[in-house]
Amino acid sequence: MNYPNGKRKTQQKTRTPQKNKPDFSNRGMTLEEDISATNQFYLEAGIAVVHKKPTPVQIVQVDYPKRSAAVIKEAYFKQASTTDFNGVYQGKYIDFEAKETKNKTSFPLSNIHQHQIDHMKAIIEHGGIAFLIVKFTPHDEVYVLPAHCVFEYWDGQFKGGRKSIPYQVVHEEGILVPFHFQARVDYAKALDKLYF
Amino acid sequence: MNYPNGKRKTQQKTRTPQKNKPDFSNRGMTLEEDISATNQFYLEAGIAVVHKKPTPVQIVQVDYPKRSAAVIKEAYFKQASTTDFNGVYQGKYIDFEAKETKNKTSFPLSNIHQHQIDHMKAIIEHGGIAFLIVKFTPHDEVYVLPAHCVFEYWDGQFKGGRKSIPYQVVHEEGILVPFHFQARVDYAKALDKLYF
Repeated sequence: MNYPNGKRKTQQKTRTPQKNKPDFSNRGMTLEEDISATNQFYLEAGIAVVHKKPTPVQIVQVDYPKRSAAVIKEAYFKQASTTDFNGVYQGKYIDFEAKETKNKTSFPLSNIHQHQIDHMKAIIEHGGIAFLIVKFTPHDEVYVLPAHCVFEYWDGQFKGGRKSIPYQVVHEEGILVPFHFQARVDYAKALDKLYF
Repeated sequence: MNYPNGKRKTQQKTRTPQKNKPDFSNRGMTLEEDISATNQFYLEAGIAVVHKKPTPVQIVQVDYPKRSAAVIKEAYFKQASTTDFNGVYQGKYIDFEAKETKNKTSFPLSNIHQHQIDHMKAIIEHGGIAFLIVKFTPHDEVYVLPAHCVFEYWDGQFKGGRKSIPYQVVHEEGILVPFHFQARVDYAKALDKLYF
């Protein structure tokens, strides 16, 4: 599970910045933060309405100090029953999970959970659009990968298949998502190619 | 009056419970709990995929005790930027907020917030369906009220209009939602009448 509020700042110390060639990778923002910034841009630009769901928390004890805000003193992380992001784009319900991997050659299925697969299957049955946004950090590449491709490998692993999706498959069946200054993970264009 | 199945169940509090005919009203569950139970039924019955969004919390301090789960030791409630429920029904994105009032004659607009109105307007602009589920507890009645009706009164209050939606308007423009054992707030049928 991703730590909810922490910022991952891996690999920054070993990178040598180059002059006149801005390197947009690994600038201290996680994939999730980049997507949230993109969603904010999409909202303001009238492109889509997509929000990240809050991290589900089981609250046990709350203090109500005088003259100040309620303080949660004891709470626990709960497992989400859905994916992280959903919303509406071009009149369609869209739903996705964002995952990063440090693996160069494949996306390990251990990054996703059965309940997320079940949720995405239900979404598709009801006419929604479900997909993964996968980042291969070693390649600094982000892909939109349609859910049906994920299901194929997910279901296959229980029939003796491999436990990861090869990078080459993601590269061929997914859509590479360009980096833009305002839309850091500009996934809407990928959806246009895949679904509209 | 718009009413899905032609049966009227108002004024239950004056009704004498009959043997073999259980009275399902006012059993201590909140509207939100009733809707969540309905969503669970809808999911299992393949009717719709709708979830309540978790309460947004700003986490400040987390302890990681050995051999046990992470404990959130300090956190604060944040204001949600969206409505409480969203999902997909019949291929359409749906989005709603659930509100109860003890008022008999009107639904006070103080129950909703500007950011929820903004969110619902954005949803409609992008082709989604937005509405309120309003419960008048004195009448033990639950209504689906289309967002455009809410906007009319919301925007009107800033032009000298009233600060509440009359019960009679909700009764006429909304759809009364029947209570069913498995679908305690069976709003899908109301959506069929309004939008499909």
